[in-house]
Amino acid sequence: MANIFSKEIRTVVGEWVESPRIQAIIVLIIVFNAVTLGLETSEAIVAKYGFILSFIDSFILGIFILEILLKLYAFGWRFFKSGWNIFDFVIVAIALMPSSGSLSVLRALRILRILRLISFISQLRLIVEALLKSLPGIASIAGLVLLMFYVSAVISTRMFGESFPEFFGTIGASMYTLFQVMTLESWSAGVARPVMELYPYAWLFFIPFILFTTFTMLNLFVAIIVDTMQQVHKKDRDAAQQLIQEAQQAAESEQQLLLKEIQGLKGELKELRLLLEKRPISD
Amino acid sequence: MANIFSKEIRTVVGEWVESPRIQAIIVLIIVFNAVTLGLETSEAIVAKYGFILSFIDSFILGIFILEILLKLYAFGWRFFKSGWNIFDFVIVAIALMPSSGSLSVLRALRILRILRLISFISQLRLIVEALLKSLPGIASIAGLVLLMFYVSAVISTRMFGESFPEFFGTIGASMYTLFQVMTLESWSAGVARPVMELYPYAWLFFIPFILFTTFTMLNLFVAIIVDTMQQVHKKDRDAAQQLIQEAQQAAESEQQLLLKEIQGLKGELKELRLLLEKRPISD
Amino acid sequence: MANIFSKEIRTVVGEWVESPRIQAIIVLIIVFNAVTLGLETSEAIVAKYGFILSFIDSFILGIFILEILLKLYAFGWRFFKSGWNIFDFVIVAIALMPSSGSLSVLRALRILRILRLISFISQLRLIVEALLKSLPGIASIAGLVLLMFYVSAVISTRMFGESFPEFFGTIGASMYTLFQVMTLESWSAGVARPVMELYPYAWLFFIPFILFTTFTMLNLFVAIIVDTMQQVHKKDRDAAQQLIQEAQQAAESEQQLLLKEIQGLKGELKELRLLLEKRPISD
Amino acid sequence: MANIFSKEIRTVVGEWVESPRIQAIIVLIIVFNAVTLGLETSEAIVAKYGFILSFIDSFILGIFILEILLKLYAFGWRFFKSGWNIFDFVIVAIALMPSSGSLSVLRALRILRILRLISFISQLRLIVEALLKSLPGIASIAGLVLLMFYVSAVISTRMFGESFPEFFGTIGASMYTLFQVMTLESWSAGVARPVMELYPYAWLFFIPFILFTTFTMLNLFVAIIVDTMQQVHKKDRDAAQQLIQEAQQAAESEQQLLLKEIQGLKGELKELRLLLEKRPISD
Repeated sequence: MANIFSKEIRTVVGEWVESPRIQAIIVLIIVFNAVTLGLETSEAIVAKYGFILSFIDSFILGIFILEILLKLYAFGWRFFKSGWNIFDFVIVAIALMPSSGSLSVLRALRILRILRLISFISQLRLIVEALLKSLPGIASIAGLVLLMFYVSAVISTRMFGESFPEFFGTIGASMYTLFQVMTLESWSAGVARPVMELYPYAWLFFIPFILFTTFTMLNLFVAIIVDTMQQVHKKDRDAAQQLIQEAQQAAESEQQLLLKEIQGLKGELKELRLLLEKRPISD
Repeated sequence: MANIFSKEIRTVVGEWVESPRIQAIIVLIIVFNAVTLGLETSEAIVAKYGFILSFIDSFILGIFILEILLKLYAFGWRFFKSGWNIFDFVIVAIALMPSSGSLSVLRALRILRILRLISFISQLRLIVEALLKSLPGIASIAGLVLLMFYVSAVISTRMFGESFPEFFGTIGASMYTLFQVMTLESWSAGVARPVMELYPYAWLFFIPFILFTTFTMLNLFVAIIVDTMQQVHKKDRDAAQQLIQEAQQAAESEQQLLLKEIQGLKGELKELRLLLEKRPISD
Repeated sequence: MANIFSKEIRTVVGEWVESPRIQAIIVLIIVFNAVTLGLETSEAIVAKYGFILSFIDSFILGIFILEILLKLYAFGWRFFKSGWNIFDFVIVAIALMPSSGSLSVLRALRILRILRLISFISQLRLIVEALLKSLPGIASIAGLVLLMFYVSAVISTRMFGESFPEFFGTIGASMYTLFQVMTLESWSAGVARPVMELYPYAWLFFIPFILFTTFTMLNLFVAIIVDTMQQVHKKDRDAAQQLIQEAQQAAESEQQLLLKEIQGLKGELKELRLLLEKRPISD
Repeated sequence: MANIFSKEIRTVVGEWVESPRIQAIIVLIIVFNAVTLGLETSEAIVAKYGFILSFIDSFILGIFILEILLKLYAFGWRFFKSGWNIFDFVIVAIALMPSSGSLSVLRALRILRILRLISFISQLRLIVEALLKSLPGIASIAGLVLLMFYVSAVISTRMFGESFPEFFGTIGASMYTLFQVMTLESWSAGVARPVMELYPYAWLFFIPFILFTTFTMLNLFVAIIVDTMQQVHKKDRDAAQQLIQEAQQAAESEQQLLLKEIQGLKGELKELRLLLEKRPISD
C-alpha cells in the first residue's frame, strides 16, 4: 500500500488544488458566499430562508477548510512561507472561533472571508502588494505623526479635558478628536469654536496642529510619488547608462581595429626600410 | 433617375453635414438650446413663454434628429464605429422616450443634449478621451475599493444596522454612509460619534476604514501621476536613445572612412614595395 | 525753456520713480497703509482716531496717484504695456470711484490697494505669474467642469427645485449648492440626505456628480504636475542633447584631424613613390 | 591635580555622554517619561499615585538637566552650533519655567520633552530636517496666501463684521473664519449660507476666495513635488553628464593614441625618404 504521505501523491494533490479549474471554482464559491452573507443582513430574508443561508454558509466554510487542509497536506510547512496562504488561513480560522454570547460580534467578521478573492485574483494581489511595499517608506513619517499625536493628546487632555470630557476627557478621546481634526471634519464648527468660547487662545493649539499634520501628510504624499518615480527613473537611467557604455565599447573596438591597421602599416614601412637599407650592400 | 443611395450622393451629403460651417451652426443651436432649457427651470418664465420655449425645444430636437439621420444615411453602419457618434445618438434618443406619468423625470434629462458640445468641440473631446483612457489603469484599485466597501457594508449593517437604521439599515444604506465617511463628510460628528455612544469600540471600525480608503485613494492618485509621467518619460528615453544611436552611427561611418583611407595607404605601400623589389632586376 | 515733455526729462523722471529707493519707500507706504486700513475695522479706534486714519488714507492715496501720474508722464502709452502697471492703475482707480449710498461697499475694496505689494516684490510677482501661466493649461478642464455644472444645475433645479427651493430653487442656487457638494462640505448630512428623504434615488444624482467632479479635479491636478515636470524635463533633455552633440562634434573634429594626418601620409607616400620611379632614369 | 576643564577630560566626558549606550538609556528614559506624563492626565491615577509620578518626573528632569550640563561642559559653546542641541536645550528649559498661578498652563507643555525623541532617533531627525528644508521653497507662496488672507479679512470684517460678530467681528476673528473656510470645513452650511441670507451676493466673496486659496495650495503642492523631483533629476543628469564626458575623454585618449601612431608613421616615412634621397650620392 502506497504511503499517503509519499511525495508523489502530495505533489499530485498540490497540483490539483492549485489548478486553474479548481481556483476558478473557489473564486465562484467566494462570490456566491459574498451574496449569501449579504442576504443574511436582511431580517426579512433571514426570517424566511435563514436556515438555508446558514446551511450554505457552513457548507462553503467546509469547502474552504477542506481546501486549506489539502494545501497543508500537499505543501507541509512550506504552506506558511507564502504571506497569502497565511492570510487565507487566518481568515478561515476566524470563522471557527466561538461566536456565542459576548463574542457574537465575531459572526459579522465571517464576511472577511470574501477578502480571499484578493489572494485568488492576481490583479488585486498585485495592488495590495504594491500598497504594502509603500508602507516601509512612510513608516518614519507615520512615526513622527504618531509622536505629535501623543504629545498633542496629552496637552489637550490636560488643557481642555475638564471642560470638554466628551472631546478631550482621556488621552484616547483626545487622540480620536485630534484624528477628526486632522481629517478637517467639523474641526472648527464642532470642536475648536466651542473650545474657544472657554479658552479664547485655543486656536494657538488647533491651527498649528492642522498646519503641521496637513503639511506632514502632504510630504508623505510627495514622498510616495517621488519614491515611485525614482524607481521608474532608475530603470531609465540604467538603460541610458547601458546604451552609452555600449556605444563607447563599439567606438573602442572600432578604434582598436584602426590601431591594428596602423600598426600593420608601421610593420610594412619597417620592412620597406630594411629592404632599402639592405640595398646598398646589394649594389 | 439617380439612385439616392448611390455612393456619390451619400459622400456629398456626408461632407456637407460634417463641413465646418454646419458643425458651427449645430454648436450654436446646442448653446441656444442650453439657454432655452435653462429658462424652462423658471416657473415665471414658463408661465409666460412656456409655449414658445416648448416649441423651440421641439424644433431644435427636430434639427438634431435630422442631422443624425443625414449622418446615418451618409455613413451607414460606419456611423456607429465612432464612440462619439453613439454618444450623440443615445443623447438624442433619450429625448424621444416617453416622458409622461411616472417617467416625467426623464424630461429633466433633455438637458443632457447640451453634452453634445463635447463631441463638437475638439478640446473637450480630447479631455474626455484622456479621462476615459486613465480609467483602465485604475480599474483594479477601484475593484479593491469596491470589495472593501462591500465587506465593510456587510459588517457595519450587521453590527450597527439595528440601532442606526438610517445609516446602516441595509447594505445599500451602509454603502452610501461609507461613501460619505470616505469623503470625510461629517464622518465623526454625524456618524461615528453617535454610533460610538452605543458601541464605544466603533472607532476600531471607522478609523481603519478611513485610513485604508484614503491611503488607497492616495495610491490611485500616485498611480495616475506616475503612469502619465512614464508616458512622457518613454518619449524622452526614446529620443535620447535615438540621439545616442545616431551619434554612434556617425562615429562608425567616420571610422569606416578612416579605415578605408588607411587601407588605401596600405595598398600604396604595397605597390611601393613591389616597385622597390622589382628594382634590383632593373639594376 | 526746456520742453517738459522732452525725452531727456521724461527719462530722468522715469528712472527716479523706478529707482530702488523710491520703490522701497512705496513698499513701506503700502505696508503702513495696510496697517491703517486694518485699524479702521475697529469701531473703537475709528471713534477715537477716525479722522487721522481717514486723512492718512487720503494722503497715501494722493502719493499713489502722483506715482502713477509720474509713470504715465515718463513712459506715456508704454506704461500700459506691462500687465502689472495696468494692475496698479486699476487698483488705485477703484479708490477714486464714488462710494456713497448703495456703493458704500466699494469703500471696503480700498484694502485691495495693498495687493500692489505683489507688483513691487519680485518673488510674489513671480508666483502670481506662475499661477497665471498654469491657467491656460487647465482652461479646457475648467470648461468641461462648467458644462457639467450647468447640466447638473438644470437637472437638479427641475428635479429637486420645487421641494428644496433653498438649495435648488433657481439655476444659480443649484450651481452654488453643487459647488458646495463638489467641495464635499456637508454634501451628505446637509444636502443629499434631506433630499433623499423625498427622492430616495437622489444618490443616483449626487454620487456620480461627486465621482465625476473629484476625478476631473484630480486629473486637473495631475495635468498641472505633469505639465510642470515636462518643462523641467525639456530643459534636461535639451541639455543632454547638447552634451551628446558636443561630444559628437568633438569626436568628429578629432577624426577630421586623423583623416588629415592620414591624407598627409598618403601625400608623402606618393612623393616617395615618385622619387623611386624617377630614380631609374637617374641611374 | 588635573584641571577639570582640561581638554582631555572634556573629550572623555563628551564621548561618554554621546556614546550609543548612554543615548539608548536617554531614549528609554524619554519613553518612560512619556508614559508617566500620559498617566498624569488621568485624575484617578493622579489621586492615587500623584506623588510618585511627580517624583519620577522631577527625577527624570534632573537626568535631562545633568545630561545637557555634561554636554555643555564637554563641548562648551560648540554645543549651540547644532540646531538639535538648541532644540533639546529649549525643551528642557521650558520645564524649569515657573508654572504657578496663571502660568499653570505651562505645566501641560512638559510633555513637549518627549519631542527630544526626534533628536535622538536619526530617522525622525531626517524627516524633520527634510520638512524644514522644504519650507524656504514655499515661503513666497505662503507670503502670497498671507497677503490674500489679510486683504480678505479686512474686506470681510468691514462688510459682514457688524451682522456676524462671531465670524467676522475683528480682523483676528475674520482670519480664523477664513482659515476655516480655506479648510472647507462647514464653509457653506456654517458660514456662507447664513451670511448670504443677509447679503445675497456674499458668494461673490466666498467662492473666489475658495478658488484662489485651493488653487494656490494646489500649486504649493505641485511646487514641492517638482522641487523634490528636480533634485532627483539633477543627480541623474549629473550622472549622465559624467558618463558622457568620460566616454568622450576615453574616445579622445584613444584618438590621441591613433594620432601618435600616425605621427610615428610619418616620422618613419620621412626617414625612409631621407634614406632614398641620400642614395643617389651613394650611387
